[in-house]
Amino acid sequence: MTDYFAAIPTIKYEGADSTNELAYRWYDKDRVVLGKRMEDHLRFAACFWHTFCWPGSDVFGAGTFDRPWHRGANDSAAAKAKREVAFDFFQKLDIPFYCFHDVDVMAEANSVAEHRRYLAEAVDHLEQLQASTGRKLLWGTANAFSHPRFAAGAATNPDPEVYAFAAMQVRDALEATHRLGGANYVLWGGREGYETLANTDMKTELDNFGAFLTKVVEHKHKIGFTGTILIEPKPHEPTKHQYDFDTATVYGFLKRYGLEDEVRVNIEANHATLAGHTFEHEIATAGALGIFGSIDANRGDPQNGWDTDQFPNSVEELTLAMLEIVRAGGFTTGGFNFDAKVRRQSIDAEDLFHGHIGGIDVVAKGLLNAAALIEDGRLDAIKAERYAGWQGEFGREVRASDLAGIADLAVERAIDPRPRSGKQERIENIVNRFI
Amino acid sequence: MTDYFAAIPTIKYEGADSTNELAYRWYDKDRVVLGKRMEDHLRFAACFWHTFCWPGSDVFGAGTFDRPWHRGANDSAAAKAKREVAFDFFQKLDIPFYCFHDVDVMAEANSVAEHRRYLAEAVDHLEQLQASTGRKLLWGTANAFSHPRFAAGAATNPDPEVYAFAAMQVRDALEATHRLGGANYVLWGGREGYETLANTDMKTELDNFGAFLTKVVEHKHKIGFTGTILIEPKPHEPTKHQYDFDTATVYGFLKRYGLEDEVRVNIEANHATLAGHTFEHEIATAGALGIFGSIDANRGDPQNGWDTDQFPNSVEELTLAMLEIVRAGGFTTGGFNFDAKVRRQSIDAEDLFHGHIGGIDVVAKGLLNAAALIEDGRLDAIKAERYAGWQGEFGREVRASDLAGIADLAVERAIDPRPRSGKQERIENIVNRFI
Amino acid sequence: MTDYFAAIPTIKYEGADSTNELAYRWYDKDRVVLGKRMEDHLRFAACFWHTFCWPGSDVFGAGTFDRPWHRGANDSAAAKAKREVAFDFFQKLDIPFYCFHDVDVMAEANSVAEHRRYLAEAVDHLEQLQASTGRKLLWGTANAFSHPRFAAGAATNPDPEVYAFAAMQVRDALEATHRLGGANYVLWGGREGYETLANTDMKTELDNFGAFLTKVVEHKHKIGFTGTILIEPKPHEPTKHQYDFDTATVYGFLKRYGLEDEVRVNIEANHATLAGHTFEHEIATAGALGIFGSIDANRGDPQNGWDTDQFPNSVEELTLAMLEIVRAGGFTTGGFNFDAKVRRQSIDAEDLFHGHIGGIDVVAKGLLNAAALIEDGRLDAIKAERYAGWQGEFGREVRASDLAGIADLAVERAIDPRPRSGKQERIENIVNRFI
Amino acid sequence: MTDYFAAIPTIKYEGADSTNELAYRWYDKDRVVLGKRMEDHLRFAACFWHTFCWPGSDVFGAGTFDRPWHRGANDSAAAKAKREVAFDFFQKLDIPFYCFHDVDVMAEANSVAEHRRYLAEAVDHLEQLQASTGRKLLWGTANAFSHPRFAAGAATNPDPEVYAFAAMQVRDALEATHRLGGANYVLWGGREGYETLANTDMKTELDNFGAFLTKVVEHKHKIGFTGTILIEPKPHEPTKHQYDFDTATVYGFLKRYGLEDEVRVNIEANHATLAGHTFEHEIATAGALGIFGSIDANRGDPQNGWDTDQFPNSVEELTLAMLEIVRAGGFTTGGFNFDAKVRRQSIDAEDLFHGHIGGIDVVAKGLLNAAALIEDGRLDAIKAERYAGWQGEFGREVRASDLAGIADLAVERAIDPRPRSGKQERIENIVNRFI
Repeated sequence: MTDYFAAIPTIKYEGADSTNELAYRWYDKDRVVLGKRMEDHLRFAACFWHTFCWPGSDVFGAGTFDRPWHRGANDSAAAKAKREVAFDFFQKLDIPFYCFHDVDVMAEANSVAEHRRYLAEAVDHLEQLQASTGRKLLWGTANAFSHPRFAAGAATNPDPEVYAFAAMQVRDALEATHRLGGANYVLWGGREGYETLANTDMKTELDNFGAFLTKVVEHKHKIGFTGTILIEPKPHEPTKHQYDFDTATVYGFLKRYGLEDEVRVNIEANHATLAGHTFEHEIATAGALGIFGSIDANRGDPQNGWDTDQFPNSVEELTLAMLEIVRAGGFTTGGFNFDAKVRRQSIDAEDLFHGHIGGIDVVAKGLLNAAALIEDGRLDAIKAERYAGWQGEFGREVRASDLAGIADLAVERAIDPRPRSGKQERIENIVNRFI
Repeated sequence: MTDYFAAIPTIKYEGADSTNELAYRWYDKDRVVLGKRMEDHLRFAACFWHTFCWPGSDVFGAGTFDRPWHRGANDSAAAKAKREVAFDFFQKLDIPFYCFHDVDVMAEANSVAEHRRYLAEAVDHLEQLQASTGRKLLWGTANAFSHPRFAAGAATNPDPEVYAFAAMQVRDALEATHRLGGANYVLWGGREGYETLANTDMKTELDNFGAFLTKVVEHKHKIGFTGTILIEPKPHEPTKHQYDFDTATVYGFLKRYGLEDEVRVNIEANHATLAGHTFEHEIATAGALGIFGSIDANRGDPQNGWDTDQFPNSVEELTLAMLEIVRAGGFTTGGFNFDAKVRRQSIDAEDLFHGHIGGIDVVAKGLLNAAALIEDGRLDAIKAERYAGWQGEFGREVRASDLAGIADLAVERAIDPRPRSGKQERIENIVNRFI
Repeated sequence: MTDYFAAIPTIKYEGADSTNELAYRWYDKDRVVLGKRMEDHLRFAACFWHTFCWPGSDVFGAGTFDRPWHRGANDSAAAKAKREVAFDFFQKLDIPFYCFHDVDVMAEANSVAEHRRYLAEAVDHLEQLQASTGRKLLWGTANAFSHPRFAAGAATNPDPEVYAFAAMQVRDALEATHRLGGANYVLWGGREGYETLANTDMKTELDNFGAFLTKVVEHKHKIGFTGTILIEPKPHEPTKHQYDFDTATVYGFLKRYGLEDEVRVNIEANHATLAGHTFEHEIATAGALGIFGSIDANRGDPQNGWDTDQFPNSVEELTLAMLEIVRAGGFTTGGFNFDAKVRRQSIDAEDLFHGHIGGIDVVAKGLLNAAALIEDGRLDAIKAERYAGWQGEFGREVRASDLAGIADLAVERAIDPRPRSGKQERIENIVNRFI
Repeated sequence: MTDYFAAIPTIKYEGADSTNELAYRWYDKDRVVLGKRMEDHLRFAACFWHTFCWPGSDVFGAGTFDRPWHRGANDSAAAKAKREVAFDFFQKLDIPFYCFHDVDVMAEANSVAEHRRYLAEAVDHLEQLQASTGRKLLWGTANAFSHPRFAAGAATNPDPEVYAFAAMQVRDALEATHRLGGANYVLWGGREGYETLANTDMKTELDNFGAFLTKVVEHKHKIGFTGTILIEPKPHEPTKHQYDFDTATVYGFLKRYGLEDEVRVNIEANHATLAGHTFEHEIATAGALGIFGSIDANRGDPQNGWDTDQFPNSVEELTLAMLEIVRAGGFTTGGFNFDAKVRRQSIDAEDLFHGHIGGIDVVAKGLLNAAALIEDGRLDAIKAERYAGWQGEFGREVRASDLAGIADLAVERAIDPRPRSGKQERIENIVNRFI
């Protein structure tokens, strides 16, 4: 079964002119950009769920993929085979990281006891695979949304038993992540939200959710996990309304429960667009609020209202996103995880490589462009000039005065400020020079 | 000019069977509902801007309304005439409140000095009109978005002179509101946002915005204004992205600058839907977060992506909204202001009455329905039953334990929680019984 | 297994004041409205797929429903049990019609031969069930979108073998519908569309699709089927773009292939809203273009961009929709099929009844309201008055002239037409009197 | 006043490495691409309305632009000055074409007689300006939507006098276009649609609209105009629903009135996206249906629901659009008109150049990329291979058979077609090589 990708060689950097479709044209991991190796800048990860668990099904049709490890029951042997083929894939892509949900990597469990046994089995094996391949864990997480028991949520479930089941899963997944040396631990509140207000007690649910997150943070410290706890915002789907709507909403939630210094955001491009924001808006917001953490790289279809989770393929979008990432200080523990799936019609093993190679190159080119824009300096200069008044005497006086003081300044000086051009078209042309 | 509405009588309650199109069928101001008079529950206001200032223009065409007070220049005489006709209108609707922006009620000013002189003139007259008609001010506000000087924002403008001009306007409008006995003061950040991140320093703009709001709150206390300061969320339009995106975002902003106990939200139905939320979601969110203030009543067209500001006409929507308002404790200083405009084709004087009468009756019927639903008790009982587990022993144990403690509970008891029906269809049928 | 609904009695009309949640409050099948029995007006149907086939799964989670007929393989015995329980349901709802896709009612087939054998088996049984219960078939259809072979479409598939497979299914399903006395035959082009233009030959696909539909129409006549062929428009999902985007698009498609007198539309509420239209817009468009056929009753969530297929619950929406249906001449062969599913959390057998009862009552009340509006006559009178100019001499002269003639009229008479109020708010208030 | 752009030189091609912000980096008008000069391929035009008439106003604020020709009344002298400065601009951009609405180029008229006199005056002058500058008219049109008389539509107005007024304007604008040697005549039905179905007779409006268009086509032939008549689709704004929703809808409309060989579409990028389509979808649809005409180049903000009419700045989008334009046969009479406006903050004269230069270069680069993709041949080869089955024996047999014949083929051969990869990710990577 580890022969699944036998026909595919390890993917190497060959440069922009390479005609090899199974090579990188931009991702040159050792190339130094803005003082850092590309690999260290971008910290790429591939994921288990979309790439090794999803069968190619959608709401209107059955799975289209014929993966050997899906043929029988999802027992210990099948789970082991899946883990092996996944690590073969990670190695062939030659990227440093991977990510997983508990249930992605283990046999199907029908009780608490089975859940713990199968997860432990999987973690032992993952530890060996990490050692033998040199791949590392960007983040782990627990899937507390797919099983029917989570239909009404996990940490926000009206039933405390479900909350307890989720606590068991999160505790174990967090400890597994710790043991595997994971750099972060993620919570995506898949069903933390509501379908109708008519049967929902929002305040209770929010408070339960806040308490849950607080307990996770406390447990992290108790076990000595030094990675970052991340929340992944999403506005809706599967629930009509999800509590972690977007970065600004998550910020308010963290402030409410005093967690803004403990938790950061894992921003997904497609979730950003579903919330009515650009990808770069979410990154810039996280940067401005001091909670930028990590990225789930993908793209949505801006004309469809659901999560399409396509591979990123717009260098233009990634250039703007990388610019904001660099401005937000770049990654510390975070990285670029491909939370993306090949299309349902892309049924060949090779298609998984095309998806990832294209995505990796688009992000890498985005970094190169962003670096060039920063080194060019014009964008930053225009911005500095635009806000220069706040560094001048009048600006300082305004900052130092109270409302009446400022108003009196306006009256005494009979100010009559004139609009100045925002130069948007000129700036857009400058950006286009670097794409 | 105060003859403009001469053909229209004062609007009276005549009951559901009345065939008079210029009468209320549901709004019976003295009827006691849930222990309070309807007038005191709903605190209706009409606004100056859409009803007396907007000429019926849109992006694709000129004004269609032939209002006498618009025929010449907007000088002191025209502004006076407008104020008189407006108060005639408020009286004929027989609603207790009105709202205004500074520039709505005054002659056009071309300098700081003129602005202050014309505003003062207007406030003197408004004070007389309030006294002679018995109408009250629900809230005042300053328009710091229409003049070209505000093209790049007011409190978030890159130019501190513009910020100072806005401070002058807000100081004076707040003091005018105080003098007129206003119940609230509103800030809508019309152009507080950005068109492109490429020329925007989001952190500086947010911090300037936070400082501005802080100064407004301080000034309120300094002058002894006891009304509520309100922020009105809106996701976009005119700017591509507005900082006060929705209630949850405003909450995070208030927490960031320590203002969550000082400032509440003025929720507009159309702004809620533009943000991807239902109207009742925004109210429920404000209720859960403790910042519910007031309502701008209107409706959007859910299939168009801009602010259509139509009059509310869905009893179904208003029933759900009123239910959440009552659950959030109802209005204290807030009320229902009609931030709504008749359609551009609705050019007759009478159309202004049809718009308001329809809106008032829809809100009133929504209140009656919500009261009946609450008195029926089934909805509340279903919800209480749904969350009952949290009052039981297991629920209390879970709340009291840390993450490991809860997880251990799950393991020891080998819990296997089963999904329970959320009964959404049944609940929707119950709600429909009361509409 | 036919005991599944044993606890539920047959649903009866009990009137608006009934407190029985398992009774109709508005649907009184023998009540005569606008000269016709309600049952004959509305022609309600329930469907197999959402109600008896869907397991309660979504993209993010497994099925939540525990239906006895889903427990083992979908073999002949299970399919038989499903058909029996479905007819028990149809009878208990006391509605005249049902609908099905071929694969909904039969055992799972793994070859052409099995497909035909299992379908034939099912049709024999359906015929018996129709006879014994008195229920009739509103329409049949073939599912040519769920099986992996249809991933790239059926009639628009790049592979002619897939096209041939679909032709086999449609031929057999059409003949089955004919034999069962179905009133219509529906085609929903689930995957007739494209994911990316980059691999799509749109003209070839459209021409193949047109040829397919032409052959279906020819076959209908050949076998003597006198029901109506219906196309169901949908803008997207599962494909990014679907060829049958909306009613106007389908009309152009029918005109292109000369089928506008042979084929009509089956309008689904949720598909209408996904296309950016109101439900009533699609009905009115079909009426104006002469292709109104049938209705798939459900509702979408206007703030989510995917097909939620909820049960209708807005009397306001259904009043407007019924008004347009009556204006389009009402149903001839069509009817109201509930293409709606209970929420994933609504796991109780009873919930299926709550969903349908609520939907049926909302539609019935909509009909009563629409009838009252029509009998009141004000709406029609306002509209007639608005267009009266076209019946006058000037209007007739304009109609009879060519462009230059009309322009000369305008010049000679120096016309200066004034806008007249469209009276939208007044009209909305009148409509609200009847809801 | 023709000094307005005195500081700006004529814009020249200087190559990709030029650092001159007022030069073309990609638009090299004499460069031969796919056998044709770029100028002849792209046929660029600038427009009067956004660039010389719009004052920088929006729904929330007054005009921000200080243009000398806007300072006083729009009388004959001001209109003349505007025409002169516009032609100076067209010349400095060195593009071959321009476009206008009647009211854009003439003094403000208050009667039919004035309208005709001022238009005639303007046309005389335009003729001279064309002669002296060598610029040509891509298309003319009549503005039958801005004046209050058109509030309820022009050709679909309930009042035949308004219809007659529009007929006068269109007759005169068409004849003016003919006299000026215009290559096309455009109709954009700005207010041809409805605000509410409740006061709308859709069938009458559609039939009046169809008759109007028929008369326009007849008049074109009568006067010997050999240009193309174009309709510009738009889904909504200003009206809630516009009849010319998108290309497929316009096609159905043309078929209904027998005009599909007489009229083509003028596709605007922002209108495409407002309709839920990609820009390239609309072009491909027009190509497949045989009605591709011309392009209004701009871009929308995909996250805002209104027409933002920004300058195009995505080479990625334009590459895909140019690919479809070339596949649709390229322009015959059509061209690329910039129906785009600088941002309201872009108040400098120079900003108009930045907007147009950026847009022109993006389109030119898109053409170069599309040509390279076509010359590379891989995309076409993948597509040909994908549909190859239809050229084989089975495909031909299927095409030639009726439904029963095809179904019998499927049965006899026991076909079991397997899905094949659509190769979307691979194709997207190939496209990215050329951007």
